[in-house]
Amino acid sequence: MKKLVIAYSGGLDTSYCAVSLSKEYEVHAVSVNTGGFTKEEISHIESNAYKMGVATYKNIDAVATFYQKVVKYLIYGNVLKNNTYPLSVSAERIIQAIEIVEYAKSIDAGYIAHGSTGAGNDQVRFDMIFQTLAPEIEIITPIRDQKLTRQEEIDYLKSNGIDMSWEKAQYSINKGLWGTSVGGSETLASEKPLPSEAYPSQLEKEGEEKVTLTFKNGEFVALNGQENAPEINIELLNNIASAYAIGRDIHVGDTIVGIKGRVGFEAAAALITVKAHHLLEKHTLTKWQLQHKEYLSSFYGMHLHEGQYLDPVMRNIEAFLQSSQEQVSGDVTVTLKPYHFSLDGIVSEHDLMNAKFGSYGEVNKGWTADEAKGFIKIVGNQNKIYQQVNS
Amino acid sequence: MKKLVIAYSGGLDTSYCAVSLSKEYEVHAVSVNTGGFTKEEISHIESNAYKMGVATYKNIDAVATFYQKVVKYLIYGNVLKNNTYPLSVSAERIIQAIEIVEYAKSIDAGYIAHGSTGAGNDQVRFDMIFQTLAPEIEIITPIRDQKLTRQEEIDYLKSNGIDMSWEKAQYSINKGLWGTSVGGSETLASEKPLPSEAYPSQLEKEGEEKVTLTFKNGEFVALNGQENAPEINIELLNNIASAYAIGRDIHVGDTIVGIKGRVGFEAAAALITVKAHHLLEKHTLTKWQLQHKEYLSSFYGMHLHEGQYLDPVMRNIEAFLQSSQEQVSGDVTVTLKPYHFSLDGIVSEHDLMNAKFGSYGEVNKGWTADEAKGFIKIVGNQNKIYQQVNS
Amino acid sequence: MKKLVIAYSGGLDTSYCAVSLSKEYEVHAVSVNTGGFTKEEISHIESNAYKMGVATYKNIDAVATFYQKVVKYLIYGNVLKNNTYPLSVSAERIIQAIEIVEYAKSIDAGYIAHGSTGAGNDQVRFDMIFQTLAPEIEIITPIRDQKLTRQEEIDYLKSNGIDMSWEKAQYSINKGLWGTSVGGSETLASEKPLPSEAYPSQLEKEGEEKVTLTFKNGEFVALNGQENAPEINIELLNNIASAYAIGRDIHVGDTIVGIKGRVGFEAAAALITVKAHHLLEKHTLTKWQLQHKEYLSSFYGMHLHEGQYLDPVMRNIEAFLQSSQEQVSGDVTVTLKPYHFSLDGIVSEHDLMNAKFGSYGEVNKGWTADEAKGFIKIVGNQNKIYQQVNS
Amino acid sequence: MKKLVIAYSGGLDTSYCAVSLSKEYEVHAVSVNTGGFTKEEISHIESNAYKMGVATYKNIDAVATFYQKVVKYLIYGNVLKNNTYPLSVSAERIIQAIEIVEYAKSIDAGYIAHGSTGAGNDQVRFDMIFQTLAPEIEIITPIRDQKLTRQEEIDYLKSNGIDMSWEKAQYSINKGLWGTSVGGSETLASEKPLPSEAYPSQLEKEGEEKVTLTFKNGEFVALNGQENAPEINIELLNNIASAYAIGRDIHVGDTIVGIKGRVGFEAAAALITVKAHHLLEKHTLTKWQLQHKEYLSSFYGMHLHEGQYLDPVMRNIEAFLQSSQEQVSGDVTVTLKPYHFSLDGIVSEHDLMNAKFGSYGEVNKGWTADEAKGFIKIVGNQNKIYQQVNS
Repeated sequence: MKKLVIAYSGGLDTSYCAVSLSKEYEVHAVSVNTGGFTKEEISHIESNAYKMGVATYKNIDAVATFYQKVVKYLIYGNVLKNNTYPLSVSAERIIQAIEIVEYAKSIDAGYIAHGSTGAGNDQVRFDMIFQTLAPEIEIITPIRDQKLTRQEEIDYLKSNGIDMSWEKAQYSINKGLWGTSVGGSETLASEKPLPSEAYPSQLEKEGEEKVTLTFKNGEFVALNGQENAPEINIELLNNIASAYAIGRDIHVGDTIVGIKGRVGFEAAAALITVKAHHLLEKHTLTKWQLQHKEYLSSFYGMHLHEGQYLDPVMRNIEAFLQSSQEQVSGDVTVTLKPYHFSLDGIVSEHDLMNAKFGSYGEVNKGWTADEAKGFIKIVGNQNKIYQQVNS
Repeated sequence: MKKLVIAYSGGLDTSYCAVSLSKEYEVHAVSVNTGGFTKEEISHIESNAYKMGVATYKNIDAVATFYQKVVKYLIYGNVLKNNTYPLSVSAERIIQAIEIVEYAKSIDAGYIAHGSTGAGNDQVRFDMIFQTLAPEIEIITPIRDQKLTRQEEIDYLKSNGIDMSWEKAQYSINKGLWGTSVGGSETLASEKPLPSEAYPSQLEKEGEEKVTLTFKNGEFVALNGQENAPEINIELLNNIASAYAIGRDIHVGDTIVGIKGRVGFEAAAALITVKAHHLLEKHTLTKWQLQHKEYLSSFYGMHLHEGQYLDPVMRNIEAFLQSSQEQVSGDVTVTLKPYHFSLDGIVSEHDLMNAKFGSYGEVNKGWTADEAKGFIKIVGNQNKIYQQVNS
Repeated sequence: MKKLVIAYSGGLDTSYCAVSLSKEYEVHAVSVNTGGFTKEEISHIESNAYKMGVATYKNIDAVATFYQKVVKYLIYGNVLKNNTYPLSVSAERIIQAIEIVEYAKSIDAGYIAHGSTGAGNDQVRFDMIFQTLAPEIEIITPIRDQKLTRQEEIDYLKSNGIDMSWEKAQYSINKGLWGTSVGGSETLASEKPLPSEAYPSQLEKEGEEKVTLTFKNGEFVALNGQENAPEINIELLNNIASAYAIGRDIHVGDTIVGIKGRVGFEAAAALITVKAHHLLEKHTLTKWQLQHKEYLSSFYGMHLHEGQYLDPVMRNIEAFLQSSQEQVSGDVTVTLKPYHFSLDGIVSEHDLMNAKFGSYGEVNKGWTADEAKGFIKIVGNQNKIYQQVNS
Repeated sequence: MKKLVIAYSGGLDTSYCAVSLSKEYEVHAVSVNTGGFTKEEISHIESNAYKMGVATYKNIDAVATFYQKVVKYLIYGNVLKNNTYPLSVSAERIIQAIEIVEYAKSIDAGYIAHGSTGAGNDQVRFDMIFQTLAPEIEIITPIRDQKLTRQEEIDYLKSNGIDMSWEKAQYSINKGLWGTSVGGSETLASEKPLPSEAYPSQLEKEGEEKVTLTFKNGEFVALNGQENAPEINIELLNNIASAYAIGRDIHVGDTIVGIKGRVGFEAAAALITVKAHHLLEKHTLTKWQLQHKEYLSSFYGMHLHEGQYLDPVMRNIEAFLQSSQEQVSGDVTVTLKPYHFSLDGIVSEHDLMNAKFGSYGEVNKGWTADEAKGFIKIVGNQNKIYQQVNS
C-alpha cells in the first residue's frame, strides 16, 4: 500500500484527512511539538489518531530544534514583524515541515499530506519545504482541494464511525514556544481588538515583579540567576509573565498570497526576551552594528514569514547575526506589571556606556572644546559646501 | 558694538553667557518655543533676560514650524530611534538652530552664542546649522570653552549683581511638542530606571479611555472627531494621555561624538501618534511600501539625530515619505490605560484588508486550489533548483 | 462578436494567435512602438496583420511615454540590473502592457491576447498589468496554453492560407529605445559569449570621437549642444555610438519564475547615458544622496523587472528620485572608441568638487591641522571605546 | 632617547620627517609592502633611510596579510566604490597602519609618525587605527602640523646634508596589489581625463587573449589552470592584462573630510577579478543572496574607505560574505583586448542556470501553463487589491 505521512494535529481537518486518506494509503500520522503540547495533549492526540485508522502515530519533540534553528536567530535579530509580531506561528511551521519531511524520507513514504486550506500562508510554507527537500514526494492536500464545510467533514467522519464533539471554539488558538496566536471574528475585520477573554492567559497577579535575564553571546542562558537551556528559560519566563497577562497584541501584515491578514497573539516571553536582548545590544554594539543588523533582521523576518527558510541567504544572514553576538553578554532586569512590562537596565562588562570615557552631555573627558569644534567643522563640511555651491 | 544673538533659555548656563557676553557684545537673547513653554514661562524668561543685561529679548513661536518641518515626517516615517525614542529633543534643536540663525541674519548679527557643553549632541546640531546657513557668522560658546563649574558661574553672576536661586533640579527636564526628556543620576549609568517621580506627568486617572485619531494623507487632522491643526491635536492628545502616565521609557543610543548616551523621556502623544499611524499604514500600504519606508525612515532618524537635517538627502527622503502617504487616511482607535495603551483597530476606505478579496486563512475567494499550487510551485523554484544543484 | 485586442508583433507566434483567434473573436491587433520600429516596419506589420484576418490594426507610438514613465527614472537611478543590464526589454513590456490595456478599455474589448510562452518573464508582466488595470477583461494566451512547435504553427497558418517564410533567425532580436536584446543558442547555456556577428550593430568607425551630454535636473536635454527631447537625444546618441559597436554585454539574472536567465544585449545609448549621468551625480550629490539612491534604485530595478510597476511604492521611489535630481545639471564629456567608451569629466555649476573649499589630499584650506586632529579623535571614539572595553 | 616608529616611504615628506625627528627621537623607519615595491625599490628605500639618520629600517612584507584581511572580502563583495573604484589605496592604508602599530608595540615605541597632510583621507586612516590599537602611543605628524612647502623641505634636507634630487613627478603614483592610483593636475579639477601617458602601463599588445580565472569558495585559486596563492594570481593576472592597458578609470568620491576627491587609477587585475567573480555569483547565488550582498558590500566599502576597518560590524559583514561564498566555485573565462575586456562565460557545478530546470523564455519544463497562470494571479494579488480599493 502507498505510504503517506500526514501532519496531524487532531483537529477536525486533519482528522478528516486521516480517515479519508486511510482508505487509499498506509497513513503515518506525525505531530511535531514546537512547544505547544503538554504530555497529556500528546497522548490524547495519539489515541485519537489511531481511532482515525492511521497505521502509526509519532510525536516529534522539536522544541530544542526549533530554538536552535530559528528562535535563536529571531532573538539575535530582535525580529518583530512589522514592529509587532514575533513570528510565532510562521517560525513553527518551518520546523514542523522540516521534521515531517525528514520523517517521511526516513520511512520511504511517497506522499505527504497536510490539512492547510488554499487561503493562507501555511500551505506555502509546507509545500515549499516539502518540494525543496523531497521533490520526489507527492503532496496531498484534501482540505485545500475539496473545500468542504465543517459540517460536511463532521458528517463524513460520523458516517465513518467517528462520532466526536467537533464544536468550533470561538477563538482558534495556536500555541508554541514562541507565542500563541489567537484568531476570532474580530480579526477577520479591521476595527476591533480581541476581547480580553479571547487570550489564553488572564491576569492572575497584581503589583510588580522583577526578573533578570542573563544573556551570553546573545543566548538567554539564565533566568533570575538559574541556568537552563534557552528554550527552557523562555518557557519559564512565559509562565511567570503570563500571570501578568503580558504580551497581548494584534498583528496586521501581508500574507504570502498578497492579501492582508490580521491575527491576535499572546507572546509574553518572546516580547520580553526580544526587548531585553535589544536593550543589551544598544549598550554593547556599535552604531553600525545596530544599523546593519536592523536591515538584515527585517529581511530575515520577511523571508522566514514567506517560507523562504531554505534560501541560502538565510544561512548567510545567520552567520552575520551569530558574529554580531560576540559581546552581547550581560544581565537585563525587567519589571513585570499587569498587562505590560518595562526594562530597568543592564549590567555588562561589554557595556560601551562606560563613564571613564565621558558621560553624555555632562563633561567631555576624552577631548577638548577645540577638538570638538574641529570635529564639528569637518563633519559639517559637505553640507556647508553644498549650501555655498547651490545658494 | 558687536551684535550677538544668544540662544537663551533662562537657565544658569545661558544666564552666565548673557551676563558675561554683554560686556563685550550687544546681546540679543532669543528663545525658540517648540512646544515646551507656557506664556507665563516666556514672560518669566523675558524679564530675567533683561536682568542679565541683554539689549533685546525675543521669543519665537516655532511650534507650527517644528511640526511642518520635522514632526510631520517623523510621523510619516514612524520614526522611533533604536525602536524606542521619538527623537523629541534632537528634532527640536534643529528647528531652534534654524530659527536663531535666521533671526541673527535678519538683524545683521555677526555672532551667535549658545550654551552647550563640549560633551554632547547639541553643540554639533547648533554649530552645524549655524555654519551651514551662515558661514559668515562667528559662533561663541563660553560654556564649552571655559568649562566652569556651576558654583563658578553662580559666583560670577552674584559678583555681577544677579543673585537668584540656581539650585539644580534633581532631574533635568527638556519639554517640547514631541516629548520631554528627563536626565538624572540614574541615566548616567546603565543599571537603573528612573524612579516614577522623576517623570513630569503622574498617574491621575484609573480605568480606560478610548481616543480616536483621524489621519488624512498621514497627517493627524482630528482627535475624537474634533478637527484642529496637527500640532494642536498632538498637544491635546498629550494632555489626555499624560493623565494615564503613558509614554515613559529610557533611550540608549549612540551620540554624535561616539559615546553611548542614556536618557529618560516621556512622550505620550508622540508614541501614541506614531503607533496609531503605523497601524493605519499596515492596512493601507503595500508590503514594499512598508519595507522601503522602514529603511529610509531609519536613516532619516539617524541623520536628523546627528544634525544632518540640511543634507539634501533629507529633502529626498521627505519626498518619498510624502508620496507614500497618499492613501494613509482613516480613523484609528486607541485605548488608554494606566501606564500603557493598546491599539483597537482602524477604519479606512483605503484599507487593503477588505473581505471581498478573501480572508486570510479562511476561504480563498480570489483563486482556486490549483492556482495556489501553481503559485507555490513557481515561487519555490529557485530554492528547489538550488537544493538539487548543490546536494 | 466578442471583441479581443491582441498584442501583435507580426512574428510567427502572434500571427498564429491572430489567425486562430479571428475565428472566434473580432480581433483588434495592436503593436506598441517603444523605439524599436521604423515606419517601414510598422506598415509592413500592418499589412501582414490584415492578412491574418484581424478586424483592425493600430500602432501606438509610445516612445515619449516610455521615456516619461520609465526610462527617465532608470536614468535618475542609474539602474543597471545586476550591475550590467539597463533593463531594456523589462521596461518596454510594462509600457506596452499599459498601452494595450488602455486601448482595450477604450474600445470596450472583453479579451486581451498576448503571445508569451509559459516559461518567461513577459507573461508575468503582461498578465499582471492587464489583471490590475482591467480585472474585468479576460486574458487569452494560445501560445502558453497550447505549447505548439514552430512547425505546427507554420502548418496551421499554411492551412489557413498564410504561406509566408517563417524561418527562424539564428539570433532573436528585440529592439527598443533603451536597448536591443539578443538571444541565441549561446545564451541558453553559461559558457560562451555571443559571437560578434550576433549583435545588430557592427564596428563602422575607427579612432575616437567625443560627445557631450547635457543634463538638466537629471534629464538628458542636449547632445553635443543640440537640444532635443531626451528620447530623441537617446536615439541620436545610440546612432553615433553604435557605429563604434559600443554597449554589448550579456546579462545573467533571476527570472520572475525563479530560474536563471541569460541574454545578450546591445545598449550603447543606455549605458553611456547612465554612466555619464552617474558621473555627474558623483560631483553634485552628497554622500548620503548617493548611498540611499543606490538602495532605492536597486529595488526599483528589481520591482520593475518583476512586473511590479503598478505597486505604489514605485511612485514613492520616483518621488525620491525626482527630488534628488534638483542639482544634477551640467555637461558630461564622453570619448567613444571601438567597442568601449570612457568618461572624460564634467562641467557643472553645482559641482561640489570646487577648489575653493580645498583640494583633496593637497592643502586643507578650510580647516587647520588641529581641527583635523580633533575631528579624527572624535570620529574614532566609538571604535576606541569598543577596543578598550573588549580587549 | 624616546623611541619613535615612522611610516617611511622614502619620498620627500617622510624623508623630511625622518631627518627632523631624528634630532629628538630614536627613529625606527618602517615601510609596509602591500604589493607596490620591488626588491630593488626596497633596498633603495633602506639605504636612503639610513642616510636620513634613522636608527633602524625595516620593510614588512604584508602582501599576503593584505589579501587575507581585506582584498579577499573586497572580492567576495564585488566592491567597487561608487561603482568604479576597487578601493586600492584605501585598503592598503588600513593594513599598513595595522602593521606599523603592531611593530611599534613590539619594540615599545612611545611615538608613531606619519607623513600625511591635514587635507586628505590617509591621516584619518592612520590616526584612527593607531589611536584604537595603541591609545598609549602618541602620534607625530610634522607635515600636517608644519604645512611646509616642498622647497622648504628640500632646503631643510640640504642644510642637513641630504642633497638628493627631489623633483616632483608630473603624476603621483601609488602602487599596490589591488591597483595603482594616479594623481595629476587634471584630477584636481573635474573636466579632464588623465592623458594616456599618465598611466603606468602602456599598450604593448594587440589582438585578443583569453584568460581563465578559477574560483573556489570565492577565492581566486588558479589562473589559466595554474594554481597559486590568490595574491600571486592577482599579480600574474595584472601583468598579463596591463600589457593591454586594461583597467584605467577615474574615481570621484566623497573624502572622509567631506570634500569631493578625484583620482585616476589603473587596476587591471582588480577590475577583472571583481567582474569575473561577480559573474560567477550571478550563476551560483540566489536572487536574495545577490541583493543583500549588494547592500552589505556597499557599506563595507564605505566603512573601509572611511577608515572604520576596526568597527566590529566589519567582522560581522565578513562573516556574511564568507558564508555566501560556499557555492562560488568554478571557472570564468575573460577576453582581454586593448584597453578593455569582456566576460565570456562560466563553468560551475553549482551553476543554477541548468537546462534541466527549463530554459528562460523557451519551454517551461518544470511547470504547466495553468501553474504559471496561478502563480501570476496570486503574485499580482496585492496590486490588484490596491487598485480596486483605491480607484
